[in-house]
Amino acid sequence: MHFDFLSSDTICALSTSAGTAAIAVVRISGPETIKLILSIFKARSAAFNKGEIVSHKAYLGQITDEGEMLDEVLITIFKAPNSYTGEDVAEISCHGSVFIQQQLLNLVMKKGARPAAAGEFTMRAFAHQRFDLAQAEAVADLIASNSKTTHELAIKQMRGGFSKKIAALRQRLIDFASLIELELDFSEEDVEFADRSALAHLITEIQAEIKVLTDSFQTGNVIKTGIPVAIIGKPNVGKSTLLNAILNEERAIVSEIPGTTRDVIEDTIVIDGYNFRFIDTAGLRDSDDLIENLGIERTYEKIRQAAIILYVCDLSSCKGESAQEMLEEFRSLIQNHDKHFILIGNKIDRMDETPGHFSEIVDLETLFISAKRKENIQLIADSLVKAVKKLTVQADTIVSNARHYHALLQTSTSLKAVAENLNTGLPTDLIAIDIRTALHHLGTITGQIYTDEILGNIFSKFCIGK
Amino acid sequence: MHFDFLSSDTICALSTSAGTAAIAVVRISGPETIKLILSIFKARSAAFNKGEIVSHKAYLGQITDEGEMLDEVLITIFKAPNSYTGEDVAEISCHGSVFIQQQLLNLVMKKGARPAAAGEFTMRAFAHQRFDLAQAEAVADLIASNSKTTHELAIKQMRGGFSKKIAALRQRLIDFASLIELELDFSEEDVEFADRSALAHLITEIQAEIKVLTDSFQTGNVIKTGIPVAIIGKPNVGKSTLLNAILNEERAIVSEIPGTTRDVIEDTIVIDGYNFRFIDTAGLRDSDDLIENLGIERTYEKIRQAAIILYVCDLSSCKGESAQEMLEEFRSLIQNHDKHFILIGNKIDRMDETPGHFSEIVDLETLFISAKRKENIQLIADSLVKAVKKLTVQADTIVSNARHYHALLQTSTSLKAVAENLNTGLPTDLIAIDIRTALHHLGTITGQIYTDEILGNIFSKFCIGK
Repeated sequence: MHFDFLSSDTICALSTSAGTAAIAVVRISGPETIKLILSIFKARSAAFNKGEIVSHKAYLGQITDEGEMLDEVLITIFKAPNSYTGEDVAEISCHGSVFIQQQLLNLVMKKGARPAAAGEFTMRAFAHQRFDLAQAEAVADLIASNSKTTHELAIKQMRGGFSKKIAALRQRLIDFASLIELELDFSEEDVEFADRSALAHLITEIQAEIKVLTDSFQTGNVIKTGIPVAIIGKPNVGKSTLLNAILNEERAIVSEIPGTTRDVIEDTIVIDGYNFRFIDTAGLRDSDDLIENLGIERTYEKIRQAAIILYVCDLSSCKGESAQEMLEEFRSLIQNHDKHFILIGNKIDRMDETPGHFSEIVDLETLFISAKRKENIQLIADSLVKAVKKLTVQADTIVSNARHYHALLQTSTSLKAVAENLNTGLPTDLIAIDIRTALHHLGTITGQIYTDEILGNIFSKFCIGK
Repeated sequence: MHFDFLSSDTICALSTSAGTAAIAVVRISGPETIKLILSIFKARSAAFNKGEIVSHKAYLGQITDEGEMLDEVLITIFKAPNSYTGEDVAEISCHGSVFIQQQLLNLVMKKGARPAAAGEFTMRAFAHQRFDLAQAEAVADLIASNSKTTHELAIKQMRGGFSKKIAALRQRLIDFASLIELELDFSEEDVEFADRSALAHLITEIQAEIKVLTDSFQTGNVIKTGIPVAIIGKPNVGKSTLLNAILNEERAIVSEIPGTTRDVIEDTIVIDGYNFRFIDTAGLRDSDDLIENLGIERTYEKIRQAAIILYVCDLSSCKGESAQEMLEEFRSLIQNHDKHFILIGNKIDRMDETPGHFSEIVDLETLFISAKRKENIQLIADSLVKAVKKLTVQADTIVSNARHYHALLQTSTSLKAVAENLNTGLPTDLIAIDIRTALHHLGTITGQIYTDEILGNIFSKFCIGK
């Protein structure tokens, strides 16, 4: 594999988050790494200073700039090819003063290293075949992951599960293509090496596999943006109070973890590492249920957008006929929508007795809570997590990257043309063109096929230092 | 050395700055470190997993939590006593996702580690005599350093120069004290082992050394808060334009350095790593010189507060008699104030000729500039840096820590009492009390003497993870 776009110079960057901290790490990669380190670093180990450096070993010593000590640091050299990038890499662990970080970077640049572009370390790792393009993209996803689900998706993709699936698909297509190409070589002899119906069957199989992957993109997308949850129910059953109770309780838990609080997107919470997004809450927040009755069409729209629906009823007014009515509505919703519904009986605080009377009428699993007194809100949280686990287990491999999704769609379009042309008995050379196009698109996913533009797009989204 | 206040459990913290980045480092220290790592980490190296761990070596592998892979990480174990804290230490270099950082810390805590308090790693380093208290404080100063001067102060102190000076002083006092104590042992025999005039001489010497140190505190303090610079001169010579020119030019340079921009304190700039603070600029900023003529008392007050004074004159109006007048004023200021003055001839843009006529009259080094056109502003920056270098070179050891300063003052007060009592021929046992007090205060600086309160105060100012 050869990369014209790849320079072979030595790059550097701050790899840890900017700001004052106990320590910071500056990373250097490229052929001049060791020479550069020897010119600025005096290790306590005399062997190191003579260039007898053990790979992967942390050396204590001093960074000096023109005779002045800049910092006492730990330096680990990772010799090529056993490094992240596949090149010689140095990691300098310095004191986390912003001034030191800045001076150290300046010094390293003065000694000839170039500031790394976003994702350039990972791009070099790809260039040196440390991993394929889909895995490289997973590294960026992993760093950006902010919930258990996005994290799981990225980890799976980084470990290569998705890449293997794509490689297997591609192998089948290549087998197919080689038969077709063989025919082309002998086209004057009018031989048919490939059994046309077997070919058609193979295309159908591959198409089915691609469809599973493209279908999973919706789930993947939902996971990336947060699992959409709708709260529905009649007016005054306590929907807005419930929303606030869920958001407040879970947020309080999140912010307890020291040093890791982050900006919370309105109406989005993380429970057990899963990201939930409450949709269409404009009428709910602070409304105290007064203006939330927006008609059945609006409710249907909310259900359509959601993956999980919390259906809330007021236990204190849900008796006899009213309970039967509610039950009918709920059953009809479940029947007409392929979604996960959770039934919630609210206002246990207003009940003198246990909600036993309700259970007698409603033969459905119900979570009994008091949104007002914030009682049993944890039951809802548990139920949401259970629902999302069910949702994600369904898909073995989930496509969460729009680039992969579109490449798969384009592969599918080309294969559709192949299948049609096989049917209509088009000349082999024309069929071969579509096969090659399909192979091309599939190859872009893992990077067998790439252009500078594709790589530029991918790596520019990385953070600097990775 | 024994620390009742020190627990011997295993502690953990995020040691890099919080936030999303390429990598983050979680640090663990304590007796359970290796056991803990083995329970959550599977290295590619089979030897590691069997517990055959090479100290200081980076091992690649996977962190798993209940069978689920959390991240692929590099782990380096630093075995006691050859670690930062003197205990077994592990540094986990993980992907810098906030979610992973959080989950990793949660996992480590689940396995028995306790979140480290601020500065607890360094406190343990002190407890295991990796360095003394003044050096430990220098680590915090180093991390907080934001300029060349504060950085230099911290580095010097961390390397132990100041500690050695204090230790030498203390040794002299101990020698003195042992003679006094010897007398006490034989007090009934009325023997004078210690020659009183030699003792008095020794005290005078020690006092002189302490005075040099306490005097340096003003410089140390100035360096910590920024070197104060005053801009003075007659109305309409262009002082406010000059201030803005200096601030804007230097700030533009500072903000060029990628990833390291920081909040800029109004009227403070960093030139060549030195922190300068322009004082009393309220009348200067945006005033265009119109209201800045605040009388000679105000000017004197500014000079008193400053370490460096920029005296600005308008070349275009500074001719003949007016130039002589200016020269007289400038000379008088230099004579009456022990400060560093820099003479600036402004408005070269209004001059047809070179400012030669000025040089003929004014036989002083002058920087010829145009504040309006931002010409030669760099000359002023260079001159400021030269001035501050002169300032800091004067003092060999600079006391910059208020705790040390007060301990030195208290030592001095006790020694003063000793000297007086030697003169008045007070009984040896009373003199001994003051000697012990002096030794106590001196001992608190490097931590030979400490209390939980002292340590608590010092380490609570550290960041978590150090």
